Amino acid sequence: MSLFTEAEFEVRFFDCDPLGIVWHGNYAKYFEIGRDAFSKKYEIDFEEIFHKHNYSSPLTSIDMSFKRPLEFKDIAIVRATFRPTDTPKVIFDYLIYKKSTGEKICTGSTTQVFVTRENRQLSLTIPAFYEAWKKTVNL
Amino acid sequence: MSLFTEAEFEVRFFDCDPLGIVWHGNYAKYFEIGRDAFSKKYEIDFEEIFHKHNYSSPLTSIDMSFKRPLEFKDIAIVRATFRPTDTPKVIFDYLIYKKSTGEKICTGSTTQVFVTRENRQLSLTIPAFYEAWKKTVNL
Amino acid sequence: MSLFTEAEFEVRFFDCDPLGIVWHGNYAKYFEIGRDAFSKKYEIDFEEIFHKHNYSSPLTSIDMSFKRPLEFKDIAIVRATFRPTDTPKVIFDYLIYKKSTGEKICTGSTTQVFVTRENRQLSLTIPAFYEAWKKTVNL
Amino acid sequence: MSLFTEAEFEVRFFDCDPLGIVWHGNYAKYFEIGRDAFSKKYEIDFEEIFHKHNYSSPLTSIDMSFKRPLEFKDIAIVRATFRPTDTPKVIFDYLIYKKSTGEKICTGSTTQVFVTRENRQLSLTIPAFYEAWKKTVNL
Repeated sequence: MSLFTEAEFEVRFFDCDPLGIVWHGNYAKYFEIGRDAFSKKYEIDFEEIFHKHNYSSPLTSIDMSFKRPLEFKDIAIVRATFRPTDTPKVIFDYLIYKKSTGEKICTGSTTQVFVTRENRQLSLTIPAFYEAWKKTVNL
Repeated sequence: MSLFTEAEFEVRFFDCDPLGIVWHGNYAKYFEIGRDAFSKKYEIDFEEIFHKHNYSSPLTSIDMSFKRPLEFKDIAIVRATFRPTDTPKVIFDYLIYKKSTGEKICTGSTTQVFVTRENRQLSLTIPAFYEAWKKTVNL
Repeated sequence: MSLFTEAEFEVRFFDCDPLGIVWHGNYAKYFEIGRDAFSKKYEIDFEEIFHKHNYSSPLTSIDMSFKRPLEFKDIAIVRATFRPTDTPKVIFDYLIYKKSTGEKICTGSTTQVFVTRENRQLSLTIPAFYEAWKKTVNL
Repeated sequence: MSLFTEAEFEVRFFDCDPLGIVWHGNYAKYFEIGRDAFSKKYEIDFEEIFHKHNYSSPLTSIDMSFKRPLEFKDIAIVRATFRPTDTPKVIFDYLIYKKSTGEKICTGSTTQVFVTRENRQLSLTIPAFYEAWKKTVNL
């Protein structure tokens, strides 16, 4: 059983390049839209973590594979799936597909770590609030 | 006698749209490149103002007029000219022109105000550091 | 009686700057979201105009005034109102306000002209399709 | 012996996020700056390829690993290194480091394929102009 959310988005003119397709770097925005939707649905608010628990959760890696292009006005869905891990990391897998046809557009993943707010030290253990959250979602 | 700086920039693929030209909103970035160059040359560091003098200087308005398009690989110059004012504002006028031909591409202006860091209150008087800076540049 | 549309959008992390607010240049994106919604509702498709009528409609100017900042996760509404004109131009006025409180965030306007696709010549007369569209919306 | 170029860039305010660091997705822009510099130095112009040889070269994948953050005003270097391959692909490895200290900031890679301009078909063989270019650079 996996935790995931889906969010719909529309391709904007300002995200398209001279080839008439979404510029590849902009898919990182769509991944973030998926991550935001996940945060809302499963109540793990990274901004709250920063302000309340004094951790930020910067990305340490992102990878994206592009299967087919998206064009201006396309409606697409980004699915963000939580990948369980026993390490102090937050890992998501992504799938972007065209809403009308289901065609696979892009896949990828991101890895986040926890860094203390004060001195930007990497957390080598799993923060308490993250353990607590995992229990609330039965992980 | 007016205070101004010029900064060169190259048009990137990722700033161009499906019509093959720089997407209009991206000119706000070029204006900022001009403003940054001005800050360096005339030593008015808006980030330092924020941290040392506890004011931020958000934009309250921007206007841009587009004469000719810029395309991928074009080399252009942005000129930022300080417009003297007796109000607690920072106003710049901009001119962007193509380096090779001198063709006028874009003109515009921005207005910034001073806002206290703590409670985001608009400063109705001219902050002391701004008065001091004006003297150093003979305004 | 004026023609307008409203479109809702959510402020994304990637559109916010180190001051924790939407970077001013990104409001041009929100204006475009409003313009797109207008195009759909009143069936004036600028992409179709390009491909079918061989005109592009580049912006010749944009101005934006910022009243209050938007922050990450804010939900806002952009209203795009068509400003009637007898010239070969397309002019929109914009209002962005916070959905929850109605607070005014940003106002502005854009002006577009018609340019022939082939040689990028400015159209000095009102293109036939534009006249025809105006009739369909009783302007 | 490897082919590579280095290009310097300055971190702009508009590329930084509410945590005060470059938003991760923007590193794809820095990679592109590196790729552009490579194209100039080794005379493989992807835009010319599009117009003259009727191929576009879209990215099929990108991966980025973030070691340390960049902040507003940092000066950094992006190094793009060509990774030789016998397949009809263009692969680059990237390294971004801080100019003043040499600190490693980000590493990654991109893969591009060749797609025919007309019908967007993937080229399964190595295009003639790419073979020819490889010879000119002794690969």
